[in-house]
Amino acid sequence: MSETILEKTESRVSYLDSVEEMLKFIREDGLSNAFDRYALQEKIRCKFCLEGLSCKLCSDGPCRISEKGGQTKGVCGIGPDAMAMREFLLHNIMGAGTYSHHAYEAYRTLRETGRGNTPFKITDVNKLKWLCQMVGIDTNKSENQMAIELADLLDAEMSKGPDQPSIMVEAFAPKKRKTVWKNLNIYPSGVIHEIQNSVASCLTNVDGDYVSLARKSLRLGLATIYTAQIGLEMVQDILYGTPTPHEVNTDLGIMDPDYVNIVFNGHQPWIGVATLQKAKTPEIQQRVKNAGAKGLRIVGSIETGQELLQRFPVDDVFVGLTGDWLTIEPLLATGTVDVIAMEENCSPPAIDQYAEKYQITLVSISTIIGMPGLKELIPYHPQDADKMADRLIDLAIENFKKRHGKITSRVPKRIQKAIAGFSTEAVLGALGNKLDPLVEVIKQGKIKGVVALASCSTLRNGPQNWNTINLAKELLKKDILIVSCGCGNHALEVAGLCDLSAQDMAGPGLKEVCNMLKIPPVLSFGTCTDTGRVSMLVTALADHLGVDIPDLPIAVTAPEWMEQKATIDGVFAVAYGAYTHLSPTPFITGAPNLVKLLTEDVESSPGEKLPLVTTRYRLHRILKHILKRREKDSV
Amino acid sequence: MSETILEKTESRVSYLDSVEEMLKFIREDGLSNAFDRYALQEKIRCKFCLEGLSCKLCSDGPCRISEKGGQTKGVCGIGPDAMAMREFLLHNIMGAGTYSHHAYEAYRTLRETGRGNTPFKITDVNKLKWLCQMVGIDTNKSENQMAIELADLLDAEMSKGPDQPSIMVEAFAPKKRKTVWKNLNIYPSGVIHEIQNSVASCLTNVDGDYVSLARKSLRLGLATIYTAQIGLEMVQDILYGTPTPHEVNTDLGIMDPDYVNIVFNGHQPWIGVATLQKAKTPEIQQRVKNAGAKGLRIVGSIETGQELLQRFPVDDVFVGLTGDWLTIEPLLATGTVDVIAMEENCSPPAIDQYAEKYQITLVSISTIIGMPGLKELIPYHPQDADKMADRLIDLAIENFKKRHGKITSRVPKRIQKAIAGFSTEAVLGALGNKLDPLVEVIKQGKIKGVVALASCSTLRNGPQNWNTINLAKELLKKDILIVSCGCGNHALEVAGLCDLSAQDMAGPGLKEVCNMLKIPPVLSFGTCTDTGRVSMLVTALADHLGVDIPDLPIAVTAPEWMEQKATIDGVFAVAYGAYTHLSPTPFITGAPNLVKLLTEDVESSPGEKLPLVTTRYRLHRILKHILKRREKDSV
Repeated sequence: MSETILEKTESRVSYLDSVEEMLKFIREDGLSNAFDRYALQEKIRCKFCLEGLSCKLCSDGPCRISEKGGQTKGVCGIGPDAMAMREFLLHNIMGAGTYSHHAYEAYRTLRETGRGNTPFKITDVNKLKWLCQMVGIDTNKSENQMAIELADLLDAEMSKGPDQPSIMVEAFAPKKRKTVWKNLNIYPSGVIHEIQNSVASCLTNVDGDYVSLARKSLRLGLATIYTAQIGLEMVQDILYGTPTPHEVNTDLGIMDPDYVNIVFNGHQPWIGVATLQKAKTPEIQQRVKNAGAKGLRIVGSIETGQELLQRFPVDDVFVGLTGDWLTIEPLLATGTVDVIAMEENCSPPAIDQYAEKYQITLVSISTIIGMPGLKELIPYHPQDADKMADRLIDLAIENFKKRHGKITSRVPKRIQKAIAGFSTEAVLGALGNKLDPLVEVIKQGKIKGVVALASCSTLRNGPQNWNTINLAKELLKKDILIVSCGCGNHALEVAGLCDLSAQDMAGPGLKEVCNMLKIPPVLSFGTCTDTGRVSMLVTALADHLGVDIPDLPIAVTAPEWMEQKATIDGVFAVAYGAYTHLSPTPFITGAPNLVKLLTEDVESSPGEKLPLVTTRYRLHRILKHILKRREKDSV
Repeated sequence: MSETILEKTESRVSYLDSVEEMLKFIREDGLSNAFDRYALQEKIRCKFCLEGLSCKLCSDGPCRISEKGGQTKGVCGIGPDAMAMREFLLHNIMGAGTYSHHAYEAYRTLRETGRGNTPFKITDVNKLKWLCQMVGIDTNKSENQMAIELADLLDAEMSKGPDQPSIMVEAFAPKKRKTVWKNLNIYPSGVIHEIQNSVASCLTNVDGDYVSLARKSLRLGLATIYTAQIGLEMVQDILYGTPTPHEVNTDLGIMDPDYVNIVFNGHQPWIGVATLQKAKTPEIQQRVKNAGAKGLRIVGSIETGQELLQRFPVDDVFVGLTGDWLTIEPLLATGTVDVIAMEENCSPPAIDQYAEKYQITLVSISTIIGMPGLKELIPYHPQDADKMADRLIDLAIENFKKRHGKITSRVPKRIQKAIAGFSTEAVLGALGNKLDPLVEVIKQGKIKGVVALASCSTLRNGPQNWNTINLAKELLKKDILIVSCGCGNHALEVAGLCDLSAQDMAGPGLKEVCNMLKIPPVLSFGTCTDTGRVSMLVTALADHLGVDIPDLPIAVTAPEWMEQKATIDGVFAVAYGAYTHLSPTPFITGAPNLVKLLTEDVESSPGEKLPLVTTRYRLHRILKHILKRREKDSV
């Protein structure tokens, strides 16, 4: 297959027609947008930064590495490998810190729900009991009491240092991996402890050894998944239900200007759920109708949208998912949004101009969000969830009155169906609650292997979603089942790869299996936070077969990683032992020893290599890896 | 007075003769060093980074702001002010994280000491009881039990979120400031919680508002001082004794090649103390003598040296302090060091070449330290302190046998006396346990004001220590008492400003007071971690007078900040309400609104402005501020 994709993309900046359509209006309206800003920035990129050869941490800097000029080290004495790895670790820390923030809010919400202080309830009681059993909490007590104890335990797990072993790691890590991690000195403590240790290591004149820094990064990746991600997703299941597959709507065509539209954007579903619950009451709908609207609608944007999508049916109140972060500006330009309520990334900082032009109320519903033009900043407290939902509805009605009939709406017609809501439980359910049927179809070669696609959306290696969708299509053709999460998952949903009709894109073996099970060839597993959830399925498979992760015919790809949470997910995948593909190339290419460490040396140790790719995807490498594993016949 | 200092410095790279002397040898030996690397980097500085107008966080970057080229925003949409402030906050986080790591180790050490698992004991029982009383721990129990409960409480304080009020902030913050902080929404939680919140805010597309980011920075600064720094320094006092003024030796002349020399370098005194205790036993000294040495000596380098210096007498076993981080390479080149044991910054990453050339054993005694050429990495566990000290002595004896008689030693002759070990208790003691005499001499104008000098050492604004020492001299002439901490304090000690003879540098009023009290005009208050300790004295003064911090004739200066801990100290000082001077200029000059916020707008709100200076110190501004405050006649 061809390695070059860029020539096919001329004149396009997105794979998605709706985005291309909106962009014309945005440009006509003279608004700045990510696509045009990208083109401008391309003219003045710093080559040193791109290669990882710059540092601006201390006042003796900024420093650069330039062999030619004799600047082989920074003022402090740091060399290229440690300079690049330290910056990468700093990015990893930001990702880990954000996941831990999400987990902190999840555990807090569970605790207050157990205390009866939120509008939420324990929706999945079985999961609550199961998780309590997994971590050693006595289940002979009330649901609320279990919830409180579980919240306290999970919270404490995040802060654990090396003096106490982690219960979550012990409960959820693959059996054979634990020894590998201990031998490599990357067996993790709690994520907050590892962040503290890593942050202190990144200070000027503390850790100047790239191997030591890389080890900290791997340990941090493991800590993130086992003490933040898995806990927080399981808690969200307990609160709002474990995802089950169901048909949903996506793309910008779900917007209707005649409704009061509240968009939830970010990753954390609390207030989205609280508002959705209210929106489903006749009283609220009547109030909105009295204001001249057809009704109140809840719209899902990026990962908060996905969190809702995987757990709630799409109907006339919750209308579905718009898309990934690059679709936010196009969404706002449709002239249909009344409130965009934001609580995590991606909440792009220059949407104040859209708010002004298209009459939108920007609201922060988390302490971490800030941007010019915010109408209100409401800090999240679980106890206030009800009040916060009320306030958003008030703001949306106020906005509707100013927007409706005054702002021209321009909604692309496209609506794409998708099946969302896969989970380990759902997959096992489809297989009759055992893994053997999956093992069997892989052994028979009907499914050649499984690739977990966990990605963002970036413009660095081509138009929005281009790399993601094209790579996925090629994998399907080769009979590789895709389990997808993150913003890359929105790409696949919006592009139709999560629809049942996508079975036609699959090779004959995969098609046969999908047809038999009535599933699409891409299983939508949720958000980037569900990286941990995906790993639970893979761990179950490895433990079931009694093998280690590198022995499975699986791989992980992030064809369009963009932000720092993606980098910690990628690092986790490497430590987990999965063959891991990251594109665009991380900013480390100027550091030859580091590149060797991450692309060659880790193959035999933490697990697998982390291929460095440029603007091209490397399907052949992923395939080669999977075929090599199949030859080993471990499955 | 002149604003320009650079013309006086021609041909010099350090204020310190010993460093200049050693640098000749280092260059003859062909070794890379910070001074020459600085000169090389000066040729290829990135102007965008210097102005805060670059970002390399995500894969849509690296981005730059260039009005000329139309790049007024990054790809995500972030503008210059938020871009610069976010990077500054990231640096603040690194500083806060490192202090919290130090605090974590301190509380762990106290807990294990209470349990009888370390070679340490409760040295200052009164302080233990006092601190327990301050935080509400019942003191009617054994010292060990109090120690354990205190450790647990302080540890928990660091992790507190907004759901629980902080006991430490309540106990130690100036009375009048608390309302200001609440009104500005910067009243802090625990430092670990604030780090988590700030880290998540720095992620791409989360907080793009410079005001919101600046507020987080101020809150983080307060959290750092009240829930990490003050607790950790008080715990170190409990374990190793509250500092009291005594005469000590400094500069490179303290080194003697005929001894086995173990240098402790960093900030955390645990293993330095454990080894010093052992070194004072006749058995160990005999063992070392049997190996052909005159004895075993403990040498203090940078802040670990200062921690020891302020609590232990200088004698034939503990010989004193060598200097700041730029003196480390010169120290190693003396050919006298057997082991350099490192646990925090500054442990510069290119000293492997010195280790090889001059036969030195490099050892990490903390999980955060890494560098090429480390002979051993021993993670710190309080329970292992004894074993770790033994191991260092073994390594040092081994090294001595390879070094002594084989490596030429070149020790500068200079030894400088200083009075170290001031503390709030010591100052109050000298004043007869009341603050009125201090208030009186300030009222009379004998002392015009007090400046806290908390700084590092950098080459950015002139030779090593140049700005620090010259600024200090000018302040003394103007009858301003200096309370100093951090690496800038080493500068003043090594340059003789902490010696009693420095009274002659003071103006007539200050000289009279110093003479009467038998103190130098610069009071050595310890390390940068003692910023909190200094604030306790100022808080006592403000609360005693019933005024707010901005009303006092005080100021804070960091004439040579270098790393990220200095930035969080500086931010704390602003939030604390002190007139704050930072040099070199932080990397924010390309962000006009941010500069205005930090230099003008904060004057009336968090307290005072943060002046931006270039290579020149701004004595006149500090003086103007102090005189203005005197006019208000609050004191």
